[in-house]
Amino acid sequence: MHSQILEDAGLSGKSGQFTFDLVAQQGRARAGIFHTPHGILQTPLFAPVGTQATVKSITPDQLNELNASLILANTYHLFLRPGDDLVAELGGLHHFMNWPNPILTDSGGFQVFSLAESRKIDADGVTFRSHIDGSTQRLTPESSIAIQQNLGADIIMAFDECAPPYDPEYNRRAMERTHAWAYRCLRAKTRPDQALFGIVQGGIFPELREVSAAYIASLGFPGHAIGGLSVGETKEEMNSILEIVDRILPEDKPRYLMGVGTPEDLVNGVLRGVDLFDCVLPTRLARHNSAMTRTGRLNLVNATYTRDQAPIDENCSCYTCRNFSRAYLRHLIAAREMLSATLLSIHNLHTLLQLAREIRQAIIEGCFDQFAANFFAQRSGSEQETSR
Amino acid sequence: MHSQILEDAGLSGKSGQFTFDLVAQQGRARAGIFHTPHGILQTPLFAPVGTQATVKSITPDQLNELNASLILANTYHLFLRPGDDLVAELGGLHHFMNWPNPILTDSGGFQVFSLAESRKIDADGVTFRSHIDGSTQRLTPESSIAIQQNLGADIIMAFDECAPPYDPEYNRRAMERTHAWAYRCLRAKTRPDQALFGIVQGGIFPELREVSAAYIASLGFPGHAIGGLSVGETKEEMNSILEIVDRILPEDKPRYLMGVGTPEDLVNGVLRGVDLFDCVLPTRLARHNSAMTRTGRLNLVNATYTRDQAPIDENCSCYTCRNFSRAYLRHLIAAREMLSATLLSIHNLHTLLQLAREIRQAIIEGCFDQFAANFFAQRSGSEQETSR
Repeated sequence: MHSQILEDAGLSGKSGQFTFDLVAQQGRARAGIFHTPHGILQTPLFAPVGTQATVKSITPDQLNELNASLILANTYHLFLRPGDDLVAELGGLHHFMNWPNPILTDSGGFQVFSLAESRKIDADGVTFRSHIDGSTQRLTPESSIAIQQNLGADIIMAFDECAPPYDPEYNRRAMERTHAWAYRCLRAKTRPDQALFGIVQGGIFPELREVSAAYIASLGFPGHAIGGLSVGETKEEMNSILEIVDRILPEDKPRYLMGVGTPEDLVNGVLRGVDLFDCVLPTRLARHNSAMTRTGRLNLVNATYTRDQAPIDENCSCYTCRNFSRAYLRHLIAAREMLSATLLSIHNLHTLLQLAREIRQAIIEGCFDQFAANFFAQRSGSEQETSR
Repeated sequence: MHSQILEDAGLSGKSGQFTFDLVAQQGRARAGIFHTPHGILQTPLFAPVGTQATVKSITPDQLNELNASLILANTYHLFLRPGDDLVAELGGLHHFMNWPNPILTDSGGFQVFSLAESRKIDADGVTFRSHIDGSTQRLTPESSIAIQQNLGADIIMAFDECAPPYDPEYNRRAMERTHAWAYRCLRAKTRPDQALFGIVQGGIFPELREVSAAYIASLGFPGHAIGGLSVGETKEEMNSILEIVDRILPEDKPRYLMGVGTPEDLVNGVLRGVDLFDCVLPTRLARHNSAMTRTGRLNLVNATYTRDQAPIDENCSCYTCRNFSRAYLRHLIAAREMLSATLLSIHNLHTLLQLAREIRQAIIEGCFDQFAANFFAQRSGSEQETSR
């Protein structure tokens, strides 16, 4: 029955346009190429987040200069404003925001549970109040897919329920709902030029994660996401859940760790078989005056940097580090100049994009173990950082 | 006596590095080249304003893409924050803000009179309270020059007093003070790699403007500015003052109309012999959601633009107009995304920079009269706009 639906949707096996080629593997780490209608994705990769059809404070030209390939946009936000019907009328998200490269939209599930002013879940979907105007709105698996089809991203996500990580009963119920909704999303999808990814849930509970990964994998999605992580659990718990899921998800399809991460999350995720990452962290930290480096963060408000002629990171090749001192960035922040957000976003995005590129190269060259060991050795002593 | 000072300062005649070559003239309009240590300026030109050592929301790369040549920074702001001594320690303004092309700093005079929380003028200078922290500060002709020498711009301005335009007695006193201070600025200046421009004052009073232009011209500055305009007087009054001053200032030196303007101000100014303009308008309007075109302004908040797939201006070749619809810009504004300020700033700056380039080309080709007639014919019906 499943396979019939998948064939109808043109998504079974590798017959669609969304093939995933593994280029190299080292341990659990993989380097791959995922083909989409708007270009290839070289994995492992990090996707900048453009919640409202813009990566905050950055132009598409600047994103291109950063060699970003995939960006993420949020269905919840675009559904509420400007509306997915308007985006469709204006030619779809790629045209609307002038991003000719691949785009991924989430399903709205995570945002409804974390942002909407009040929400009520039933078996069919979620009713909630918009955080913008308080209006009553509803999302279901079917409407999430319809919205994502209007937006027109290359990769779209199944509508899921993300539970707080430590409540076993809540997680069991949320997982079962996520499974039922995943199946309904597959049935609802009609556009052949979009790849629908399923999402594994189950909190920090190994047995739930095993059940969830097996069930989601059985539906034959062209890619799989791991949801419900980086939502309050420890790094050790996240890593052990990744190891469980990694053993079950099929190797010939990409795995996407949603809403993660920090530099160390990327390395830890790749070590456990993850191919795709996204996170608001680089641009959000930028707007809070914080610069990300592989060895830790700099808060550029600090008076230490008043006369500091060095760039954020001597080893960084981004536009910001090639051209501006810490002292200048600190001045922009003190003077409340918008340019600080732009220049720090460029640097922070470069940090993660470049790290993912170097991870990929290390896997291809067979030296990723050494790369990861060096990475963690450099970070020892720096505090643990979370993605959200 | 004057000429001795000028020779000491290396500024007499055209012997310095700041030569001005007239390339073409048509009526009173002129096309010229002004040579500075950081490159040539092709006049007429419009200078974007980078008050706090940044053109708000725009990177130097984006300014380069706009082919901006000269930018202005404000002495008052940089004196208060981060401090001119710090800028000097960090290599001067060009290096600090990563702008290798020409820079002009104003004297702080206009800003002290319009921004400082309270100010007391005496014959020697002005004591005022900082708008940032309320601290008591002081500027004199000598300290303004010292600050501007620390900042290191190519063109620096004499410290002047800008009076409200309609009070004859106030304007006479302010003019006389401006004259005394201009002389003191010349004596204070020591750096040979900066051109100090004198400023003509006198409100809307022809007889004061004649006296002021003649006196300032007599001091032998390498360039002259017309201050105290676009501060509340009518367009007709501004234009008639420009005509008076134009007859008196020497033709072989550039004339700079400070703090102006709108597209029509540029055309009107050039018709009356002006070579240089600067104004915060393009970037300030951008932050208030307004797009400048040659035929008027568009307020992109307007619901009219919700589904409008056209660019701001079909005839505009800027990055924003080549890539984004009015509907997308309106969405960014509604969603309070910073990118709207960046994209509108790019467009608005392009409008004025490109207009100045086309004016220059028309003068060189001998068709500026026709160009100006067409320009005003296109604008008929649009409301009168002011620069400040």
